[in-house]
Amino acid sequence: MTERPLRVGVIGVGTMGTDHADRLATRISGAELVAVADADSARAAEVAARYPGVRAIANPLDLIADDAVEAVLIASPGFAHEEQVLACLAHGKYTLCEKPLTMDSASALRLVEVERDKAGRPLVQVGFMRRFDPEYAELRRLLDDGELGRLLLVHNIHRNKTSPAWFRDSAAIVNDSLVHEVDVCRWLFGAEIETVTLLTPTPSGRAPEGLRDPQVAIFQMAGGGVATTEVFVNSQVGYEVRCEAVAELGSATIGLGQEMLVRRDNAYGGRIPDDYRERFARAYDIEVQEWARACRRGVVAGPTTWDGYAASAVCEAGVASLGTGQPVRVELADRAEILRP
Amino acid sequence: MTERPLRVGVIGVGTMGTDHADRLATRISGAELVAVADADSARAAEVAARYPGVRAIANPLDLIADDAVEAVLIASPGFAHEEQVLACLAHGKYTLCEKPLTMDSASALRLVEVERDKAGRPLVQVGFMRRFDPEYAELRRLLDDGELGRLLLVHNIHRNKTSPAWFRDSAAIVNDSLVHEVDVCRWLFGAEIETVTLLTPTPSGRAPEGLRDPQVAIFQMAGGGVATTEVFVNSQVGYEVRCEAVAELGSATIGLGQEMLVRRDNAYGGRIPDDYRERFARAYDIEVQEWARACRRGVVAGPTTWDGYAASAVCEAGVASLGTGQPVRVELADRAEILRP
Amino acid sequence: MTERPLRVGVIGVGTMGTDHADRLATRISGAELVAVADADSARAAEVAARYPGVRAIANPLDLIADDAVEAVLIASPGFAHEEQVLACLAHGKYTLCEKPLTMDSASALRLVEVERDKAGRPLVQVGFMRRFDPEYAELRRLLDDGELGRLLLVHNIHRNKTSPAWFRDSAAIVNDSLVHEVDVCRWLFGAEIETVTLLTPTPSGRAPEGLRDPQVAIFQMAGGGVATTEVFVNSQVGYEVRCEAVAELGSATIGLGQEMLVRRDNAYGGRIPDDYRERFARAYDIEVQEWARACRRGVVAGPTTWDGYAASAVCEAGVASLGTGQPVRVELADRAEILRP
Amino acid sequence: MTERPLRVGVIGVGTMGTDHADRLATRISGAELVAVADADSARAAEVAARYPGVRAIANPLDLIADDAVEAVLIASPGFAHEEQVLACLAHGKYTLCEKPLTMDSASALRLVEVERDKAGRPLVQVGFMRRFDPEYAELRRLLDDGELGRLLLVHNIHRNKTSPAWFRDSAAIVNDSLVHEVDVCRWLFGAEIETVTLLTPTPSGRAPEGLRDPQVAIFQMAGGGVATTEVFVNSQVGYEVRCEAVAELGSATIGLGQEMLVRRDNAYGGRIPDDYRERFARAYDIEVQEWARACRRGVVAGPTTWDGYAASAVCEAGVASLGTGQPVRVELADRAEILRP
Repeated sequence: MTERPLRVGVIGVGTMGTDHADRLATRISGAELVAVADADSARAAEVAARYPGVRAIANPLDLIADDAVEAVLIASPGFAHEEQVLACLAHGKYTLCEKPLTMDSASALRLVEVERDKAGRPLVQVGFMRRFDPEYAELRRLLDDGELGRLLLVHNIHRNKTSPAWFRDSAAIVNDSLVHEVDVCRWLFGAEIETVTLLTPTPSGRAPEGLRDPQVAIFQMAGGGVATTEVFVNSQVGYEVRCEAVAELGSATIGLGQEMLVRRDNAYGGRIPDDYRERFARAYDIEVQEWARACRRGVVAGPTTWDGYAASAVCEAGVASLGTGQPVRVELADRAEILRP
Repeated sequence: MTERPLRVGVIGVGTMGTDHADRLATRISGAELVAVADADSARAAEVAARYPGVRAIANPLDLIADDAVEAVLIASPGFAHEEQVLACLAHGKYTLCEKPLTMDSASALRLVEVERDKAGRPLVQVGFMRRFDPEYAELRRLLDDGELGRLLLVHNIHRNKTSPAWFRDSAAIVNDSLVHEVDVCRWLFGAEIETVTLLTPTPSGRAPEGLRDPQVAIFQMAGGGVATTEVFVNSQVGYEVRCEAVAELGSATIGLGQEMLVRRDNAYGGRIPDDYRERFARAYDIEVQEWARACRRGVVAGPTTWDGYAASAVCEAGVASLGTGQPVRVELADRAEILRP
Repeated sequence: MTERPLRVGVIGVGTMGTDHADRLATRISGAELVAVADADSARAAEVAARYPGVRAIANPLDLIADDAVEAVLIASPGFAHEEQVLACLAHGKYTLCEKPLTMDSASALRLVEVERDKAGRPLVQVGFMRRFDPEYAELRRLLDDGELGRLLLVHNIHRNKTSPAWFRDSAAIVNDSLVHEVDVCRWLFGAEIETVTLLTPTPSGRAPEGLRDPQVAIFQMAGGGVATTEVFVNSQVGYEVRCEAVAELGSATIGLGQEMLVRRDNAYGGRIPDDYRERFARAYDIEVQEWARACRRGVVAGPTTWDGYAASAVCEAGVASLGTGQPVRVELADRAEILRP
Repeated sequence: MTERPLRVGVIGVGTMGTDHADRLATRISGAELVAVADADSARAAEVAARYPGVRAIANPLDLIADDAVEAVLIASPGFAHEEQVLACLAHGKYTLCEKPLTMDSASALRLVEVERDKAGRPLVQVGFMRRFDPEYAELRRLLDDGELGRLLLVHNIHRNKTSPAWFRDSAAIVNDSLVHEVDVCRWLFGAEIETVTLLTPTPSGRAPEGLRDPQVAIFQMAGGGVATTEVFVNSQVGYEVRCEAVAELGSATIGLGQEMLVRRDNAYGGRIPDDYRERFARAYDIEVQEWARACRRGVVAGPTTWDGYAASAVCEAGVASLGTGQPVRVELADRAEILRP
């Protein structure tokens, strides 16, 4: 019997919050979903009903105060974050708050101070999830290794196929899209951004009237780094997020639809793993996860004993052919005969 | 509170079994590790001790018989599988048995019959995990969609950097390596293999004395498909597993170190996802998983309130620059000042 | 004044022969097209008329005998090759003969003997042009370098979008398509092919009635190498020719739509050139070739003095911005004003 | 007999000029090298001596004035260009002048005016050779097709492994390296550059003392386009030139070491050609070029009659195996026997 799971409550079950609720209920090891809250209590009830023993709580502040809730995931609209995070701090609850932390930097700074003074220790994590993306994490590791020397430049591409209907304000491209590259650049350089320049070419004819789209942002970093970022939320193509980091001895690019591409020493390319455990790590996780689910349903959803038998018969024929180079017939029992009910 | 987890026992805690034990104890949702058994009882005790409340059971058959064990993962040496799987069937336990199912096809066929007669329903899954690899699964889905027409040919590459010391027998290349492509081809074609031809070029000078390495296997499938497979267990390069499926209207290749590459209609390439949830699905899972672990340790291991504040201050500067094209300075509080203990 | 060009006559001006005639007349340095012959004399006249001073000769044998012709390129149908090559040998003319050399191996062997006895030295080159493809040539160089050790296996893919209407015979796939891989394998291994196996899966529904398409060929090479080749002349996709060579220390693949991809030492990738002359070698050739043609037409078809001036003005603004990080306006004369007729 | 070749003289036979001289003497069809001039007359004589009938002329102005010279390629140092181009204009000679056209924009503008007034028509082409690079040309064609809509942004990467010893001045990065992207952007957008911003991060530790390397340039184009360019002349990696053009319906990238990569409609990828003539166009050119050279040397340097014979024998064996799926032995004459002297 492994450790008792972390009891989590989710506030806000729109698209993102519902994803998080499902994640906690079905995919996260060592955690369990205990309650959900939403301004729309019917919506909260509907999502809660999907999972045995999950409660719907009308008022987000009640969820935060609830003793059965150890940790809170906040996926409510940005304007609600400040009050809810303050409540989490007051109750000493661990908090994962989707970005933005609050609606402006002044209120965000107040939260930093409250956390420092009231909680006396960090309790709140902000939802900049790219730091957890395996590709970004691998890029950061490579830079930390120091093999490529000091980081000099970062080039980002951030494109959405189309922007949502409510997305009419050029500032929203900065606050909702560019903000991810803001965090990525601070994190990769390990330095603050000193100046920002936003360039806006003549907008695409596919961008909604009045939206300055695409935009090009230039960051000058403390310590002398420079980052360029294209943000284009009506590219018509799809969702593209790429990042190229340029250091003194080479560069590395992620988001290409392939593993991290490194350029150094007159060569470009990627790694080939040493063994099957690296290559198939996810396959093993998924195999065992799917097997556990299937057992719960009382079925076998993967390769059966027949598959094991057939593979064995084929290998015997293969070994018989070894060295002769001649085709060898596989002798197999009659499946219909054997497995007939 | 979500459903009670599946209680799993692991038999055999060598490299693979230890991986599986750790997987069940820390990464699999809805399952928990309750016991481990190993011929080397000290080894079993050592692994069990890593996880709270996990028992070490000396005799694998006792683990199988234990009422606290609902499902059994068998990762013992192949020669032990037959007896252990028979015991699982006798006790009606769900079983995930690493390949090979048994040491020859005759005994494997007996297991098929015992499962049919004794258990009366499938209980045993064999560990051909490639079917669960996201790339193979995507390839299979594409073929099932039928968009590429009927599958005609499959070309496999299966290379290891070097073979283990005990790997001296050319037949082992068939039984331990090629066996994966045997299952992959049966699964992709949805048909049995009718004849097998094993070709062995002059061995590589890097292969151990007497080992026919590399080998080229030709499968003729029931229904008329053909598959070619290169197996090379001393390639000196790394672990490479690639599969190209050729159908009537195009081909698809996986294992390239990039997403599935499709060739059709005078173009080669891959998909660009529609939105961030597809691109960053794993990032969100990892973020929440890491957050839950960090909460257990009582720390915040991700972006902090300061990161949320700094991002907000940068975005305000960006919005101020919008349209002007002029650099705007980011006004940030003094971090050392604010966060000083 | 460079050396007098080689005077070449082309026999057979169908699709391929017309390409060759145009190549000789306009793209090949140190050679000139002097005559063309074709069974269809109107066709010959029409092609000849495209180039100043090129004669149309009715009878191919007359072209071969013509003193003004130093070298002959034979692009006539295969059945005509034997007689024409014999005539070239009789007249001691250098010959480039499209494949097949003749219609069967017996007659081809006779040509070998006639060349040996009559000409006393090699005069005839056969049109296996893949040896001249930059990618194949680079692959061969890499193998010759010996860095990857001895060549063990070759895997070929050879696909056409659709087969021509006259292509109804399964043997034609061998004689017209596979023949290229026959030469490629002999050339890469530096060894003859000892045995051939042709496997034919159930044909694609897109293949013409009665055509065994695709086919899989297995070559066993003298010296112990093995080669596999897929030939699929109705793949519906496009023209694909790929070749993966597997050696003792790594593999290399060409035909991917990218530079040669090498896999070795736990990495896959390609070269990044040292300098611009390698990267832009073709650009310089094309630039000067286009310039020479434009001069002949009395025009300037490339960047003009205005382009030179504008670039210079932009660089001056750039240098002014250096270090300031501030935008600098480019002062440019009024083009319409300056260049008004 | 094709048209009389263009008689070209080359001024300046340093690295670049020597390349051009060799190009004209051996690779360019319809042109011939007749004379070279260089400030170092010994150097000029040495280069001239490599090619039959090519004269060395001490004074570049004499070469320009020489009646035997129809066209002049200027590859002398930049400071000499103005006087030499003026002389070419005075003598009405076609001119290909390496960049820079002159040392500053004022003198370049004077050349524009002299060409307009004296020559009355364009005579001078400037050596921005990227417009002739097949990849850039394909990118330009794609944009001209209009399929991707209007061009919005261009992102350039321009890296050298190391900078030459004389390269100590940050302005040289602009004038010698960035100048290529200046022309590329003007050419791709079909518009002038209105403002330039040069950003200089903390230089790489591998850059020579005092050199601001790397640099990031921002161009604002007339018509509202924006271009970003990284120039890094001590990247330590190799020579990298990449260009990504972002338009309203998709983007295209060149310089990746693969064919142009296009992103549109939720997919990324490249073209697969329709037939062999596109895929192997260069192979045929090189084959015939090499054949012509070999004929001049009196040898056969490509596949021989034996290769034609052997291929034919293998195909006969392949046809015999067709349908049987059985290995068939290739019957080949004894090569040593047949070809013995």
